[in-house]
Amino acid sequence: MNKERKEICLSGSGGQGLILAGIILAEAAGIYDGFEVVQTQSYGPEARGGASRSEVIISKEKIDYPKVIKSDILLALTQQSCDKYIKNVSEDGILLADSTNVLKVPSFTGKIYQHPITDDAIKVIGNQLVTNIISLGIIVQLTDIVTRDAIKKALSARMPARIKELNIKALEHGFKIGEKLKII
Amino acid sequence: MNKERKEICLSGSGGQGLILAGIILAEAAGIYDGFEVVQTQSYGPEARGGASRSEVIISKEKIDYPKVIKSDILLALTQQSCDKYIKNVSEDGILLADSTNVLKVPSFTGKIYQHPITDDAIKVIGNQLVTNIISLGIIVQLTDIVTRDAIKKALSARMPARIKELNIKALEHGFKIGEKLKII
Repeated sequence: MNKERKEICLSGSGGQGLILAGIILAEAAGIYDGFEVVQTQSYGPEARGGASRSEVIISKEKIDYPKVIKSDILLALTQQSCDKYIKNVSEDGILLADSTNVLKVPSFTGKIYQHPITDDAIKVIGNQLVTNIISLGIIVQLTDIVTRDAIKKALSARMPARIKELNIKALEHGFKIGEKLKII
Repeated sequence: MNKERKEICLSGSGGQGLILAGIILAEAAGIYDGFEVVQTQSYGPEARGGASRSEVIISKEKIDYPKVIKSDILLALTQQSCDKYIKNVSEDGILLADSTNVLKVPSFTGKIYQHPITDDAIKVIGNQLVTNIISLGIIVQLTDIVTRDAIKKALSARMPARIKELNIKALEHGFKIGEKLKII
């Protein structure tokens, strides 16, 4: 990471496990990679519209203002969340859109990556519930926002034994997709 | 709630389910009771010391500054977290200390409530893991920060079927303790 402070917004709809993904990313950065981290969920009239988001701020320095100002990285798992939160992404930021659901990517000056993440969760891993974890794998591989070792440790620590293996598999599949997307 | 903005700090050590408790309280307030809510976890050198905390801000108005300034309510499940976070509680705030672990309550100008919450989780409910949920029940009953109906709905929505009943039992036990503490 070059910038001192990186802001990540994980967005989609309720039930897609974005809060958990935010917590795992925050713990990877804060507990295993030694950064200062603030992880936030907001609820209000906006959230009740159906779009859901989880925000993570990762910094080398103490975080005095804990609100995401401009996202450096936006994950959008739905069209609605993509349309809504793209406005808050910095001009040279990164958008990762799940092309299973985001059929029309809004115009954006930064870097756009697209992959049918939900489709992969169902067809490759066999469980739609790991869409969030595949997404984390892609983000980490694309951006090096945290180390792969840290995200794997944070994921393992958060997952009950019976679904740990499935989730590690999903994460590693995410790494692979990220590697491919990087080359394109 | 009389004040427009209420700040709650749930503190203890890692593994006591305080993040989950914060999310459930936030969802009760934001999704079911219609407040504006920001729920936050911070990780840094401080967090790595062993004390863990989850913060919830509940407001009738839009929350512009999403950081807890002075807590109105502090839950402390360990001596270390009690000693550390009591300094951030407002002068007329509320401390709920788990007397299973907090053996020496620091001097404090606000209202102090004590109950062996962890002991109850083990002896009354039969599972130490519900200490966080009993705590939520006590806080809600003591403070009316959210409605009992909202916290029950938020808890039900977050819990897998196989442990839902146990957690509802824990929450209701918390309501009962809260009622008793209120009278004392």
